[in-house]
Amino acid sequence: MFMLHGRLSAKPGRRDDLLRIMTEEGEPLPGNRLYVVAVDETDADGVWATEIWESEQAHAASLRLAHVQERIARALPLIDTDGIRQQRLDARAGVPD
Amino acid sequence: MFMLHGRLSAKPGRRDDLLRIMTEEGEPLPGNRLYVVAVDETDADGVWATEIWESEQAHAASLRLAHVQERIARALPLIDTDGIRQQRLDARAGVPD
Repeated sequence: MFMLHGRLSAKPGRRDDLLRIMTEEGEPLPGNRLYVVAVDETDADGVWATEIWESEQAHAASLRLAHVQERIARALPLIDTDGIRQQRLDARAGVPD
Repeated sequence: MFMLHGRLSAKPGRRDDLLRIMTEEGEPLPGNRLYVVAVDETDADGVWATEIWESEQAHAASLRLAHVQERIARALPLIDTDGIRQQRLDARAGVPD
């Protein structure tokens, strides 16, 4: 199943603000099975998102939802887009229902 | 919450054998909230495990369970221990119940 493990980089000093936006309770995301937001204590500016989607299309569709776009618009000013990294995976076992 | 995103490296040609062992249905793991096993199409020998545990101690205790040790003993001959990598994270949102 389509899985992403990615890093967003906050601008200096804005990591906790970015984290607050990314951990807000939100409306359901169709086709989403996992959306974990985490930090790495060795990476002061990073916010890590680990996502599993029923399909790559479900992920792409989520980015067009109004409530997701509104959140992205608030997060974007806090993000250093040069620091973005993303690993694409194919989850084979252990995907939550 | 204690989270690991790690890579095991299979010996050449043994990735699918390692994957089979790692995706077997098993007995419950106390304190485990997530245990996803995945592959990365750009990484022919890697098997990736993404785990969330209620505490670091729960993870350590799981490694002492007889059924886990039995599985590790079967997997170890398939693993290139030089290829092991692991990222430690602190999951802040989205952890399954």
